[in-house]
Amino acid sequence: MNDAAAQPLAGNPAARLLVAGASGFAGALAAQLVWRHPRLELAQVTSRSDAGRRLDELYPRYRVPLEMRELDLEGLEGIDAGIVAYPHAASAPVVAGLRGLGVQVVDLSADFRLHDRELYEKWYGPHGEPQLLADAAYGLTELNREAIGEAELVANPGCYPTAAVLALAPLAAAGLIADVSIDAIQGISGYGRGGGDDTHFVTLAENAYAYKVDAHRHTPEIQQSLAELGYQGAVTFVPHLMPLDQGELATCFVTTTREVEPGELAEMYEQRYAQEPFVKVTEAPPGVRDVRDTNECHIHLARNGDRVIALAAIDNLWKGASGQAIQNLNLMLGLDETEGLR
Amino acid sequence: MNDAAAQPLAGNPAARLLVAGASGFAGALAAQLVWRHPRLELAQVTSRSDAGRRLDELYPRYRVPLEMRELDLEGLEGIDAGIVAYPHAASAPVVAGLRGLGVQVVDLSADFRLHDRELYEKWYGPHGEPQLLADAAYGLTELNREAIGEAELVANPGCYPTAAVLALAPLAAAGLIADVSIDAIQGISGYGRGGGDDTHFVTLAENAYAYKVDAHRHTPEIQQSLAELGYQGAVTFVPHLMPLDQGELATCFVTTTREVEPGELAEMYEQRYAQEPFVKVTEAPPGVRDVRDTNECHIHLARNGDRVIALAAIDNLWKGASGQAIQNLNLMLGLDETEGLR
Amino acid sequence: MNDAAAQPLAGNPAARLLVAGASGFAGALAAQLVWRHPRLELAQVTSRSDAGRRLDELYPRYRVPLEMRELDLEGLEGIDAGIVAYPHAASAPVVAGLRGLGVQVVDLSADFRLHDRELYEKWYGPHGEPQLLADAAYGLTELNREAIGEAELVANPGCYPTAAVLALAPLAAAGLIADVSIDAIQGISGYGRGGGDDTHFVTLAENAYAYKVDAHRHTPEIQQSLAELGYQGAVTFVPHLMPLDQGELATCFVTTTREVEPGELAEMYEQRYAQEPFVKVTEAPPGVRDVRDTNECHIHLARNGDRVIALAAIDNLWKGASGQAIQNLNLMLGLDETEGLR
Amino acid sequence: MNDAAAQPLAGNPAARLLVAGASGFAGALAAQLVWRHPRLELAQVTSRSDAGRRLDELYPRYRVPLEMRELDLEGLEGIDAGIVAYPHAASAPVVAGLRGLGVQVVDLSADFRLHDRELYEKWYGPHGEPQLLADAAYGLTELNREAIGEAELVANPGCYPTAAVLALAPLAAAGLIADVSIDAIQGISGYGRGGGDDTHFVTLAENAYAYKVDAHRHTPEIQQSLAELGYQGAVTFVPHLMPLDQGELATCFVTTTREVEPGELAEMYEQRYAQEPFVKVTEAPPGVRDVRDTNECHIHLARNGDRVIALAAIDNLWKGASGQAIQNLNLMLGLDETEGLR
Repeated sequence: MNDAAAQPLAGNPAARLLVAGASGFAGALAAQLVWRHPRLELAQVTSRSDAGRRLDELYPRYRVPLEMRELDLEGLEGIDAGIVAYPHAASAPVVAGLRGLGVQVVDLSADFRLHDRELYEKWYGPHGEPQLLADAAYGLTELNREAIGEAELVANPGCYPTAAVLALAPLAAAGLIADVSIDAIQGISGYGRGGGDDTHFVTLAENAYAYKVDAHRHTPEIQQSLAELGYQGAVTFVPHLMPLDQGELATCFVTTTREVEPGELAEMYEQRYAQEPFVKVTEAPPGVRDVRDTNECHIHLARNGDRVIALAAIDNLWKGASGQAIQNLNLMLGLDETEGLR
Repeated sequence: MNDAAAQPLAGNPAARLLVAGASGFAGALAAQLVWRHPRLELAQVTSRSDAGRRLDELYPRYRVPLEMRELDLEGLEGIDAGIVAYPHAASAPVVAGLRGLGVQVVDLSADFRLHDRELYEKWYGPHGEPQLLADAAYGLTELNREAIGEAELVANPGCYPTAAVLALAPLAAAGLIADVSIDAIQGISGYGRGGGDDTHFVTLAENAYAYKVDAHRHTPEIQQSLAELGYQGAVTFVPHLMPLDQGELATCFVTTTREVEPGELAEMYEQRYAQEPFVKVTEAPPGVRDVRDTNECHIHLARNGDRVIALAAIDNLWKGASGQAIQNLNLMLGLDETEGLR
Repeated sequence: MNDAAAQPLAGNPAARLLVAGASGFAGALAAQLVWRHPRLELAQVTSRSDAGRRLDELYPRYRVPLEMRELDLEGLEGIDAGIVAYPHAASAPVVAGLRGLGVQVVDLSADFRLHDRELYEKWYGPHGEPQLLADAAYGLTELNREAIGEAELVANPGCYPTAAVLALAPLAAAGLIADVSIDAIQGISGYGRGGGDDTHFVTLAENAYAYKVDAHRHTPEIQQSLAELGYQGAVTFVPHLMPLDQGELATCFVTTTREVEPGELAEMYEQRYAQEPFVKVTEAPPGVRDVRDTNECHIHLARNGDRVIALAAIDNLWKGASGQAIQNLNLMLGLDETEGLR
Repeated sequence: MNDAAAQPLAGNPAARLLVAGASGFAGALAAQLVWRHPRLELAQVTSRSDAGRRLDELYPRYRVPLEMRELDLEGLEGIDAGIVAYPHAASAPVVAGLRGLGVQVVDLSADFRLHDRELYEKWYGPHGEPQLLADAAYGLTELNREAIGEAELVANPGCYPTAAVLALAPLAAAGLIADVSIDAIQGISGYGRGGGDDTHFVTLAENAYAYKVDAHRHTPEIQQSLAELGYQGAVTFVPHLMPLDQGELATCFVTTTREVEPGELAEMYEQRYAQEPFVKVTEAPPGVRDVRDTNECHIHLARNGDRVIALAAIDNLWKGASGQAIQNLNLMLGLDETEGLR
């Protein structure tokens, strides 16, 4: 087979891209999505742990025939935009360096998601580049499209907040949430590439468990978004790991401020998401397999006794990370939001 | 290999057993547990759909070398006790027939779980043998040990109620529950042996979804138990299917009537369950793999913001069905509760 | 979300397609591949068992928003080509009916794969339309490209023959095979949508086993292809089922007619497959995950003692069925072979 | 729950046991099997990597409430027998040290399996304690029961040799093998506890691949056993990893020295294994799930064209490692071979 080393670009690229941290799960998928994007050129992929290896050796299924290098900010040239897939804290200085070079950035880490520095530092420790916080647009596309389109730095949301907030946004905006508990499950790719015993196949086969039961860092991020939509109250969030690769499902138990009829619920959600290219309100509870390897979010609403149950299924690596990053990048570059994502 | 056709009984059997409906998942495990029980004799296994087949042909791993017959209540002789593993509605007349012969019964169906006939009929349809409702002891062993020991008919609990109520009982008994939402996940064996597309490997691999989101029949059963413990309020319950075989995890989001310190929680649970042979309070959130193929229930408590999170993991076929059936049968027969279950 | 009911066709369709038997696994994927194909119009999908249901209700992940009908050969109009995904024996009359209407056909069943009617009837029973056998081109694209391009009826190969023959073809053509045993494993989608106990998640989780150990119907199909390439000897073939959804791996143990150096092997395979768009010779043993959801076949060769080991990995539903069907259809219609498959 | 810290021993222990290397998969299961063994006392568990941790913290499902220590050969007292679960090369000196103290040893590594030092060193590198080779009995129990019963040092077989040789032994002993290729699949526990990317859940979900295709170290071990049974010819062996936890299946393709009727095959195997407590000849091809968590080996024979296919399924951690270690230890200590294994 002739492994085409040339990227399948259609016409002149709208931007030349760097993917930094391409050896992790989200970074590798981001690299693939850029590689096969009709308008983006994948100019460089970097890795701290795997510099010198080809990306398609590490992830054959992504078929990106490029060698990963060490990131060299000083020698960087001809890059228009970057996707940074570093862990929190490690990401901020790289983002700052790229921004200093005038490079547009989508950051997959938590470093620029919380507007409030103090809140960030309470959950994540010292912030290395707090001066950039004010510039960062929060990248939950469906909630913040305009700001993203004008931003030079987008903080891509966490996977759990993406699912949970899309499930709850219409209720929050309508002032209907009195209280909410969010139970979520995620596939193992959400844990990341490391993990030792924790991510060993033998640990996870036929297993399922909750983690971070007392407090998970995505809680303040969910609260921030819901607050902006109008719900200022408490949020309880408990995540679980399940024996599957990709996939995320949020089950939200909502106490409402008044009784809501099922018909009203359906209409509210249908209307809110009718024009969204990636959000679908489904008649049956969605399975994570329905959205696997897509940027879609499938949402289902139900009444259960006095409560409203809001369900949202996404692929944690796509809409929960790299797919949404491309969606945001498209907006930043003035491209159609869906380009490269169908 | 010499497939010992003789049952490994130690001494005279305490009872001769019938397992009716042995070709289903719960019935087959019940048959195995009786077969290898040191004090019980497995006298007969019956099946409607697979009469004429050997049980170890259908389930090689259970190693019960008996042929299943059609149940013949009129010709039944020499049976002291029976485990009935029929679907609801189909179970009641079989239970009645066995009781008419003086046979002690543990019923795995829902038919005798709800004390209130009207409530039963609202969720399940007409009840065929309502006159037996008053005699049936509810078989959540840890809550009802004394009544079970004196009963001739035990209604074995549903798997979800077993996990959820064990997770919540100390809080309910202490009057600490103001409101509760229960999110639960279960392996596919909980769906049962049929299912067609729904239980096909291809449907479930890399999938996960909620079902019966608006109302699941185990909700009134959970409410009944919590009410007896002192909590009369609403219960919201949403179950999910996950791509694993055996295992069940209940995650309970509890709004408490007053602030509860983590230390108080720990002490309350440790004390309540200290003498229980099968309930363990764990320091880390339990995985369903930890309890697989055992009759144990592992419980973990945490504070998350203002809420209390109560987690319980069981094997849905063991403590959630056939293991608990043996535990109850042991009590009914005056044997040690743990016999045949270690 | 605006579920585009319109097909994403680029320009005028090259052909209007019928997919008959679209409710099975291979038929459903074929429908999706036609649906998203830039040059084909999916005019009709039919099903015997699920007529009246929408295909995207049955398979949400394929996103084909068409209702399946009963196949009505008499009322069929405006169809240029058809993919028939029926079981063997049921397929032949449908194929004959379509051919009678002048419709070009790719048949996924075994009915037209074996050139020799007697051989077919020995393995499959009476053949309903033997007069069509002479017209059918065998659709292992890489071996038979020219004939496929000129055919009106293509018999799409079995999944096992596709993997095994691609792994062995260069050795067979070079007269190097003295004897061969083929061990193959397949995911559960290869079993098909039915199955009852056999395909139940609980049967297959943590399981693996061989089947048809004494004789599998794909053996004569493999022999036919190898014979045409020059190897007339015996073929031993044993298939296995593994707990995964899609994927197939053939491990061929070849006794060679003379000693073959690893370098010679590598050169022979590289040269044979250099121009093939979907066959890749890999440096490491291929994993089925590497080719999942693609039409690729990854091949690896090694010497083990005196034997040559030839490995081939494909996705059984793609290159092993519906992907290869599109590849063949492209050739029949004069389109680029890879169209709609990248 | 009262976590009984006391071991459930029946009467005086027949021996006080050390399990060295208890933090690996095989060592941990060996510790559990000793812990629950009615006649063995688990006196000490050691680990190089996890000294100071409790075994039931690392492996909750094994329920062994002992703390692992560093192995201290000099301070060792009151130990009658040891199971050593170290990697090859690391094992030999520990075995030598224990033997020097008069401790009976079952060694799970490869260090004492091959009788011929040169052969060992060709595959594994320098041998640290070659003087012990002559004393070691090869622990494939069914082939070597007498020598094991008299040995002070038993080399427990590899998992692949256990399955393959049990599948082939009757044919080899009857002089019926002319040539043999062995294809085997194994669950991920066979890879061991480490592995990084190689054993990450995400690498293995929905994957399957061959490894060590040119040469695997278990080949000479299989050859050694078959040679002792009378087959001196070549052996081709190719192993694969599959997405399951425990389980191993060997599929042997045998060219026979003369035609063998199926009836003759069946009789030969039935007769050979009739008295074996753990070997069963099955009527259908065995699934690895049938033998999971047991010390059994299920064997099935078939004719496929001119070849004989011999299949054997075991649990790689039980009969393929720790279960067989206990079986051997029972013999060394004069106990019933099956004690603690039913």
